[in-house]
Amino acid sequence: MSQTFTITVLPGDGIGPEVIEQAIHVLKAVEKLEDVTFTFEYARLGGCAIDEDGTPLPEETLEKARRSDAVLLGAVGGPKWDNNPAHLRPETGLLGIRKALGLYANLRPAFMLDCMVEVSALKEEVVRGVDLMVIRELTGGLYFGEKKRYKTENGEVASDELIYHEYEIERIVRRAFEVARLRGKKLTSVDKANVLESSRLWRKVVDRVAHDYPDVELRHQLVDSCAMELLRWPKQFDTIVTENMFGDILSDEASMLTGSIGMLPSASLADGNFGLYEPVHGSAPDIAGKGIANPTATILSAAMMLKYSFGMERAANAVEKAVHKVLNSGVRTADIAKSKEEAVSTKEMADKIIAAMHE
Amino acid sequence: MSQTFTITVLPGDGIGPEVIEQAIHVLKAVEKLEDVTFTFEYARLGGCAIDEDGTPLPEETLEKARRSDAVLLGAVGGPKWDNNPAHLRPETGLLGIRKALGLYANLRPAFMLDCMVEVSALKEEVVRGVDLMVIRELTGGLYFGEKKRYKTENGEVASDELIYHEYEIERIVRRAFEVARLRGKKLTSVDKANVLESSRLWRKVVDRVAHDYPDVELRHQLVDSCAMELLRWPKQFDTIVTENMFGDILSDEASMLTGSIGMLPSASLADGNFGLYEPVHGSAPDIAGKGIANPTATILSAAMMLKYSFGMERAANAVEKAVHKVLNSGVRTADIAKSKEEAVSTKEMADKIIAAMHE
Ligand SMILES: CC(C)[C@H](C(=O)O)[C@@H](O)C(=O)O
Ligand SMILES: CC(C)[C@H](C(=O)O)[C@@H](O)C(=O)O
Repeated sequence: MSQTFTITVLPGDGIGPEVIEQAIHVLKAVEKLEDVTFTFEYARLGGCAIDEDGTPLPEETLEKARRSDAVLLGAVGGPKWDNNPAHLRPETGLLGIRKALGLYANLRPAFMLDCMVEVSALKEEVVRGVDLMVIRELTGGLYFGEKKRYKTENGEVASDELIYHEYEIERIVRRAFEVARLRGKKLTSVDKANVLESSRLWRKVVDRVAHDYPDVELRHQLVDSCAMELLRWPKQFDTIVTENMFGDILSDEASMLTGSIGMLPSASLADGNFGLYEPVHGSAPDIAGKGIANPTATILSAAMMLKYSFGMERAANAVEKAVHKVLNSGVRTADIAKSKEEAVSTKEMADKIIAAMHE
Repeated sequence: MSQTFTITVLPGDGIGPEVIEQAIHVLKAVEKLEDVTFTFEYARLGGCAIDEDGTPLPEETLEKARRSDAVLLGAVGGPKWDNNPAHLRPETGLLGIRKALGLYANLRPAFMLDCMVEVSALKEEVVRGVDLMVIRELTGGLYFGEKKRYKTENGEVASDELIYHEYEIERIVRRAFEVARLRGKKLTSVDKANVLESSRLWRKVVDRVAHDYPDVELRHQLVDSCAMELLRWPKQFDTIVTENMFGDILSDEASMLTGSIGMLPSASLADGNFGLYEPVHGSAPDIAGKGIANPTATILSAAMMLKYSFGMERAANAVEKAVHKVLNSGVRTADIAKSKEEAVSTKEMADKIIAAMHE
C-alpha cells in the first residue's frame, strides 16, 4: 500500500523559492524510487506574506501547516522589511510559527565532509571528521518570556525574562537523549548553572532524565566554556543540548566550523512526527534570483523530513549519500567553489544529486 | 615627585598565587625603571576565603580594595568548592566584588602574536594579525536581574531577568567608543534586537551615543551572526561591545581564537581610574603548585593596570614589549610549548620578561 504525505511548502523570500524548487525536485525523485506520494501545499511566510497578506504569518498558512504532515521552509527576510515595526518583520513570522506549532526541538547537525575541509577557517586536523548535533530548545526562554519597556526619572528600562518550566526542559532533554542514543551516545548539556537560576533547574532536570538513559554518557558544560571548546577541539562533541538563546549562538558557531553553511540543514520538531525543515542559511538577498544559490542545505533538510517526520530512513540516507557523492566528485556551487573552479547553478547541483540517487 | 599606588592583591586559588607572585616581581621591576612606588596589600577572595573566613568575599577584602588604587587578582575556584551551595562558591565572590566595586566595563583583548600562530586551531591566514578587544558589560543583565524559583502543580519553574537601565548601557557604550577611538576606530555593537526588548533599548542608546563619536565607524551585529563571523574572519573586528551574558560567551570564543588563553589579560573598570585586573584563564587546579603555570596573562594584566588605573602608558608598553620579545625568542611555558621543546617554569618565564625589560 502506497503512503501519502502532505507537505506545506513555504518558499519565503530571497533565494528561498529557488532552493525550495530544487528540494521539491529531489522529493519527486524520491517518489519514483519509493512507494510514496507527496502532496505539496504552498503558503506564505515572512516578507512575501507581509507584502501579500499584511502579516508575516497568515492564519491560512498556519491552518495549512496544521493539516499537513510536515513543513518545508526556504528562508525569510530581506532589507525591504528590515526597518519595519516588530509585528511586520519576517522573523516574527518565524518565531510565531515555531510557537504556534509547538516546534520545541531544533536539531542542527554540523558535519564536515572530507572533501570540504579546505573551506573551513579551522585547521584540517581540527575539523576533519567533525560530526556533531546541536539540539536547541526553540519555544521557551528569553525568546518568549515577558518583555517590559518603561520610562523612569532616570531614563528608560527594558527587560526580557528567561523562564523555563520543568516540563519544557524535560521534553527537549528527553528528545536529546533519544537523538544521542542513535548517534555517538555522548550528550553535552550546556547551561550557565553558576549564575542562572533557570540553568540550575535545567541541570537538575537533565540529571533526573539521565537515569532513563544509562547508556548515554552525559556531561554538563558551561556555555562560555562550550563556546571555547567548540573551536579548540570540536571532535570532542557528539550531541549538545541547550536552551533557546545559548542554542542560537552555539548552533551558529558550530555551523561555521564547517565553513559552509550553504550545506547545513535543520529540523524543528513538535511532539510526535510533525516538524518544520529549513536550511540554516538565510535568504541571501544579494544573490536572489540569479539561480546560483546552493540548494544542498534545503535538499538535506528535505532528507531530515523524510527521516524524522515520515520514517523514511532509507530514502533519507539515499538523498544524503547522493549529496556526498556529488560533492566528493568536485561539483561546487559558487559559495563553496575555489576561485578557479567552475561553479554550477542551483538547478545543475540538484540535477546532479538526483542523477546520483538513481545510480 | 615620586608617585605611590596601593594595589590590593588577591592571589586566590589554584595557580593564582604562583602567577600573582611573578606579576609582582614584574611590578617591582617597574618600580626600578620608573619613579613610582607600589604598596601591596594582600587579601582573600574565592575558595581560600571560604576556607579561612567562611565567605568567598570577606568584608575586609572589600574594604582594602576600596582604599586602594587597583586590584590584581590571580584566579578563583577549584573542585573542592564545586558542590557548595551558591553563597559558598568562589565565583559568587567574583560576581560580588564586581558589583560592589562598580566594575561595569570588562575589557578583554584577544591578540595573535606572529610567533604564536601555530598554537591556534584556526588557519594561519585567518588568525595572523588578529587584534581585537571585547568590551563586556559586567554588572547588569541576566547576571544581576531578579531570579525566581517556584513550584506549580505541573512542576518547578525558574527564571532570570535580563534587565538594563538606560544609564547602564550608556556608560559602557561610551567607554567602548573611547576605547575604539584609541584603537582601530571601528566599533561593533552586538545584540539580539530582532528578539529582545533589552537589545532594542541597547541599540537605541548606542545610536544616540554614536553621535558624539563621528570618527568611530559603528556597526550593529546580531549575536548569532557575531559568533559565526568571529571564527570565519576575525580580522574584520576591532572593538566589540555587548551586554553581560553575550559578552561572557563571545569574549571566551574570541580568546580561544588565539589558542593560548594562558596569555590573555583582562581589566574590569569602574568609573574613574579604578579597576580590577586578572588573567582570563582559570585556577587550573590540575597544575597548581607545580611551578609550571604560564604567568604571562597575569603579567599582561598588571600592564593593563599600569595603563588604565595608573596612567603609566610607557611602563605598560615596556612590559608588553618585553613579553613579546621573550615569546618571539622562543621561550615557552608548558601550555604553549610544542611537545619537543623544553618548557620553562613560571618563575623562569617571569625572569626572562624582567630581563627583557632591562635591555
Ligand atoms: C531570525 C531569528 C529570530 C532566528 C532566531 O534567533 O531564532 C534565527 O537566528 C534562527 O536561529 O533561526
Ligand atoms: C565564573 C563566572 C561567574 C564568570 C562569569 O560568567 O562572568 C567567568 O566566566 C568570567 O567570565 O569571568
